[in-house]
Amino acid sequence: MTREIGIGLIGAGYMGKAHAVALQAVGAVFNTALRPRCEMIATRSADGARAAAERLGFKRSTGDWRELVADPAIEAIVIASQQDTHRAISEAAFALGKPVFCEKPLAENTASAEAMVDAARASGVVNMIGFNYVRTPATQFARQLIADGAIGTLRYLHIEHTEDFLADASLPANWRTEGLANGNLGDLAPHAINCAIALGGDIAALVSDVQTVVPERGGVAVTNDDQAQCLCRFANGAMGHILSSRVAHGRKMGYAYEIHGSTGSIRFDQEDQNAVWLCRGDAPASEAGFTKILTGPAHPNYEAFCLGPGHGTGYQDQIIIEQRDFLSAIDSGQPHWLDFAHGLAVHRVLDAMVASHASGAWVELSHGESPA
Amino acid sequence: MTREIGIGLIGAGYMGKAHAVALQAVGAVFNTALRPRCEMIATRSADGARAAAERLGFKRSTGDWRELVADPAIEAIVIASQQDTHRAISEAAFALGKPVFCEKPLAENTASAEAMVDAARASGVVNMIGFNYVRTPATQFARQLIADGAIGTLRYLHIEHTEDFLADASLPANWRTEGLANGNLGDLAPHAINCAIALGGDIAALVSDVQTVVPERGGVAVTNDDQAQCLCRFANGAMGHILSSRVAHGRKMGYAYEIHGSTGSIRFDQEDQNAVWLCRGDAPASEAGFTKILTGPAHPNYEAFCLGPGHGTGYQDQIIIEQRDFLSAIDSGQPHWLDFAHGLAVHRVLDAMVASHASGAWVELSHGESPA
Amino acid sequence: MTREIGIGLIGAGYMGKAHAVALQAVGAVFNTALRPRCEMIATRSADGARAAAERLGFKRSTGDWRELVADPAIEAIVIASQQDTHRAISEAAFALGKPVFCEKPLAENTASAEAMVDAARASGVVNMIGFNYVRTPATQFARQLIADGAIGTLRYLHIEHTEDFLADASLPANWRTEGLANGNLGDLAPHAINCAIALGGDIAALVSDVQTVVPERGGVAVTNDDQAQCLCRFANGAMGHILSSRVAHGRKMGYAYEIHGSTGSIRFDQEDQNAVWLCRGDAPASEAGFTKILTGPAHPNYEAFCLGPGHGTGYQDQIIIEQRDFLSAIDSGQPHWLDFAHGLAVHRVLDAMVASHASGAWVELSHGESPA
Amino acid sequence: MTREIGIGLIGAGYMGKAHAVALQAVGAVFNTALRPRCEMIATRSADGARAAAERLGFKRSTGDWRELVADPAIEAIVIASQQDTHRAISEAAFALGKPVFCEKPLAENTASAEAMVDAARASGVVNMIGFNYVRTPATQFARQLIADGAIGTLRYLHIEHTEDFLADASLPANWRTEGLANGNLGDLAPHAINCAIALGGDIAALVSDVQTVVPERGGVAVTNDDQAQCLCRFANGAMGHILSSRVAHGRKMGYAYEIHGSTGSIRFDQEDQNAVWLCRGDAPASEAGFTKILTGPAHPNYEAFCLGPGHGTGYQDQIIIEQRDFLSAIDSGQPHWLDFAHGLAVHRVLDAMVASHASGAWVELSHGESPA
Repeated sequence: MTREIGIGLIGAGYMGKAHAVALQAVGAVFNTALRPRCEMIATRSADGARAAAERLGFKRSTGDWRELVADPAIEAIVIASQQDTHRAISEAAFALGKPVFCEKPLAENTASAEAMVDAARASGVVNMIGFNYVRTPATQFARQLIADGAIGTLRYLHIEHTEDFLADASLPANWRTEGLANGNLGDLAPHAINCAIALGGDIAALVSDVQTVVPERGGVAVTNDDQAQCLCRFANGAMGHILSSRVAHGRKMGYAYEIHGSTGSIRFDQEDQNAVWLCRGDAPASEAGFTKILTGPAHPNYEAFCLGPGHGTGYQDQIIIEQRDFLSAIDSGQPHWLDFAHGLAVHRVLDAMVASHASGAWVELSHGESPA
Repeated sequence: MTREIGIGLIGAGYMGKAHAVALQAVGAVFNTALRPRCEMIATRSADGARAAAERLGFKRSTGDWRELVADPAIEAIVIASQQDTHRAISEAAFALGKPVFCEKPLAENTASAEAMVDAARASGVVNMIGFNYVRTPATQFARQLIADGAIGTLRYLHIEHTEDFLADASLPANWRTEGLANGNLGDLAPHAINCAIALGGDIAALVSDVQTVVPERGGVAVTNDDQAQCLCRFANGAMGHILSSRVAHGRKMGYAYEIHGSTGSIRFDQEDQNAVWLCRGDAPASEAGFTKILTGPAHPNYEAFCLGPGHGTGYQDQIIIEQRDFLSAIDSGQPHWLDFAHGLAVHRVLDAMVASHASGAWVELSHGESPA
Repeated sequence: MTREIGIGLIGAGYMGKAHAVALQAVGAVFNTALRPRCEMIATRSADGARAAAERLGFKRSTGDWRELVADPAIEAIVIASQQDTHRAISEAAFALGKPVFCEKPLAENTASAEAMVDAARASGVVNMIGFNYVRTPATQFARQLIADGAIGTLRYLHIEHTEDFLADASLPANWRTEGLANGNLGDLAPHAINCAIALGGDIAALVSDVQTVVPERGGVAVTNDDQAQCLCRFANGAMGHILSSRVAHGRKMGYAYEIHGSTGSIRFDQEDQNAVWLCRGDAPASEAGFTKILTGPAHPNYEAFCLGPGHGTGYQDQIIIEQRDFLSAIDSGQPHWLDFAHGLAVHRVLDAMVASHASGAWVELSHGESPA
Repeated sequence: MTREIGIGLIGAGYMGKAHAVALQAVGAVFNTALRPRCEMIATRSADGARAAAERLGFKRSTGDWRELVADPAIEAIVIASQQDTHRAISEAAFALGKPVFCEKPLAENTASAEAMVDAARASGVVNMIGFNYVRTPATQFARQLIADGAIGTLRYLHIEHTEDFLADASLPANWRTEGLANGNLGDLAPHAINCAIALGGDIAALVSDVQTVVPERGGVAVTNDDQAQCLCRFANGAMGHILSSRVAHGRKMGYAYEIHGSTGSIRFDQEDQNAVWLCRGDAPASEAGFTKILTGPAHPNYEAFCLGPGHGTGYQDQIIIEQRDFLSAIDSGQPHWLDFAHGLAVHRVLDAMVASHASGAWVELSHGESPA
């Protein structure tokens, strides 16, 4: 038997819409026990919220997220608003015992991220962070292969998230070019770092380089970075390299990785999001190479869609998976990978990258409170 | 302002579910004027329908499609039931002036398909056929390139739909291996033929070959084909080759084409469904080649999703596009490409393939009633 | 111990040069028992031959191929002159017991090709035909896979040879656009047909289509074909499709094939000539797919180069392989795959394609004298 | 008019053979003014040299390279012997005014490399270093694109040379696993570094990481590195990342790069050595992407082969290009890119990588004597 649950969504921008669609589709897609009722949407103005409710299929709307959080018909919260609102919303929700799904990055800075993790832990309420790309069938399959030892001990991981939305130097300055949290380090790097940790485990140390490639746009100074990279060592001893860039011509969704292990390798590029390339090192020499595996019913997360082989998933499906996982966590009361602590771990690596760039030295990361 | 419309869905199998999800998602995805209300679902048994309604999010259910069609709250019908039910349902719906979206192939044979087209025309009611793959941003972009003359006059088109779901000869016989309409010619070939016509226009003549590669499965005779192909000439003079197979190891969604024109070429493979390869023949010799273009906001159907570049669409998005187009046709009262006549055109080509295989000769097709 | 052998080369054009280089390199490359001495080169004029000898490193030259064939220092002949000279040269050489390597196509027509095969058989002298692309490590590996049963019983073969050297309709007429033997059917189709036979075995029947896409170039009529294709059935029952075109924009060396067997599939494209794609149908579902195998020391013909993995071979290496095989045949006195009979077999298929295009009917091929 | 030149080759291993073939082929391939006469070969034993001369087609042989260098019939020297012999041979040759082509890496350490550059400069004799991969048509085209400003100001360069010949940890220790100069830093890293400089110009600073992944093989300690990487800044301000590994399963010739510039990007992978991927940032949004360009007659070094489009070059052709360039330098008396100074520059970057790994800090490189 299915049961309805009232959801409040905060934010009606790009990610807000993605979650609205996901909430409406997830029940039929996965036959979930909990069925979201799109109860209320909040944006910064009452008028905007009203229009968003009509557009995105919500019953009610408000210009004040506090009203939404407090509303008794709201049983769970999805945060897709600006970074600097995440903490206050989460704390208010946890205080009322309401589960929270929060878009990445977790917060506007590490201090807020720590406070959010503390609040989540203190309350014991379900909390999740939305790094969507890591939930694709492909990357879940890569994780499974690693966990199953298919490529043995990890030796080397390259992970990148490169795009070209600011590659054209003549593009004007905008909100994305102002403030550390809106730069490449606050936008694309978190996805790459989260992916690195999801595949390689904790990062033990790193040395970084960070650069503003286009220092001025239309006469306005750019105050954050365009590209950043680091060498790293994972806690398991593997070498790593993490790259992110928003000025890489030709890369539209360069969320890509190559992983070398003691008995095989894995390659992936989100631009061809339904394919994982696997090399098993024990193949006969005449058949050595990477196999292009199309994700399908035999792969994690894909099978739950009940889609035929080769039918393929897209961006929206990632958000639908997130909502399934959130509903499942709420239903079971058990935390679901990735929770706020994973979001905080990304902030810590970002801080280390900034610190290393300032000092020119390797920076070690401690993981006393590392997420599971 | 959005307005609700009551939808009745017939069938709760693979395609039924896909349409259920699409109906629930389409409003928020495309901000459609008409918003589907999942009013009633019909399957062959009342119990099955009741379970399907719960699973797929419909308000009511019935074991009798006639009840659904007749229900006054049902304003439009989506047919995702067996081929041999399409005609009767459509005729009943048209008689009541209710728009019909019908899954491919249009009917269980050409006579029924003709009757359906006649009924649709006589009633003047909106009717659509569901060849989902042709609506992807990629294939719509290919169509646009051709229409815009980007590759000039068409010279050659290869189109295939190859899969491997029956490639293993030890798989047992099932409903797919019995009866012409369930064979490769009734399943994959229609997609390939529809694609060929969508890209190359009417087919003027063809000569074919058809084969049952695995004549017996588990002691049971296979009574339909495993693979088929034809040489063809399009009405515009271009040469063509159409291939379909369900026994092609390694091909999961080999819905692929290569088109040569007088000034360029296009390549596509649905296994990498977000990429179109375009060669412009007038590039300087040192830069000649195929450009791998990721579908994005600059491409048809993708832009309407408002997805960022490289985010990518998947199978379910194709069905969501279909429902958008169906709602738009209902709203405007104008037919939307592809209507029943396009489904009939595919049946005629299938008939010609069967006839040519029997006679060993080229078969000419007339197009007096060719779809627009 | 190595031993020198005096070679006479007839022709100093594109293929003449390729063989000159091969003759000079082959000894060191493969440590052959016979070491070619570039004794004499013949072209149509004494002056041209003299310049060619200087350029290509031959000791002597002549404007008369009969002189070359008769010269006692010439122990073996390489024919890289025009098609209509192949027969007379071969007959003269065989009469003197001198081995002949002849470039493709074997002759200017089937009658001459038959005469050449007869002469070769009557004399018992070593004879070879130069279909270079079929000797690459990649295609030899594909052949080996098929012979070893790696993909089981053959079900379907698509083979093409597509290029774009006449794709631009504004290119003027030249010798390539005049006369059947110089058209696509005399140039690219033979490579595709030879490949089809090498991989799929004898062709039992076919139905074809042939087209002159650009009927006039610069006011001059084009008197041969631009593109041709056929459906075929191989003697082993497999379905086939063979395509050739010189007007396929973007294809520079579209010598490509895809083969479906009962237990796997193979894909190859000469534009990436060091890679074979193999799908083994018995892989676990989660690892199903095509493996991109780089040819290397574990593959036929590559290992003899003693090149490291991934080092890769190119066009010239194909010709060096041909010369190795020719020298080996001479040394052993044993015929080496592909001999003149294989060249004749290609002519017979070409004839069948022309006949089928004329009649519109399937044409059966007999193989009473099929090559081994 | 062509003229013969007597060449002495020192070394008959993998590279010795490659140069022997190249010397015999280069004249006919490129119609060079100077035509090599394979006069004498030297290896470490007289017997070995005699066998090598027979096998590789040299007239004479010696077990003492000093005899070869001094022989009056030897006009130029090709060094393909062990690293620690390069300096003495070069100095002896320069003293006699004989041009030297030396295989990479230039020497067994930087001190010797410096002495070799000094000796070359003092003598004024032609000297070249053999980084073969950088001379392919593809990489020369990439260099040309950069020089022509096709991708604007460089922003980011990733260059790697990854292979898997020691990926299997059960492989026994051998000469490659002993001594810094034989490790990955002495073998693959030099190719990657040379490529980085060839494409990005001088490296200004770097921070590195170096690792022995398999510390023991068959009970024998491995005394050099398996993988190494560095972040770097080029003198032009671009960010860089250089990776090399011999334990990367599935990579057979992972000599690959991706370069982002202000107006475009370039991608290349030597495993598909005849293709360069170019993205021009000013393409219309609907046609943005990487174009796969097959090297052909329109590209540097390829055109000189006079090969048709798509025919493709391989490993041996790279060595033939080197010999053409060497002969051309000798003929003109002008130095030819890459000379010994380029070899020294690579040693300096390797030293910086070792130093940075030891200190954990960025290391700056000075380029007072940077090669042109």
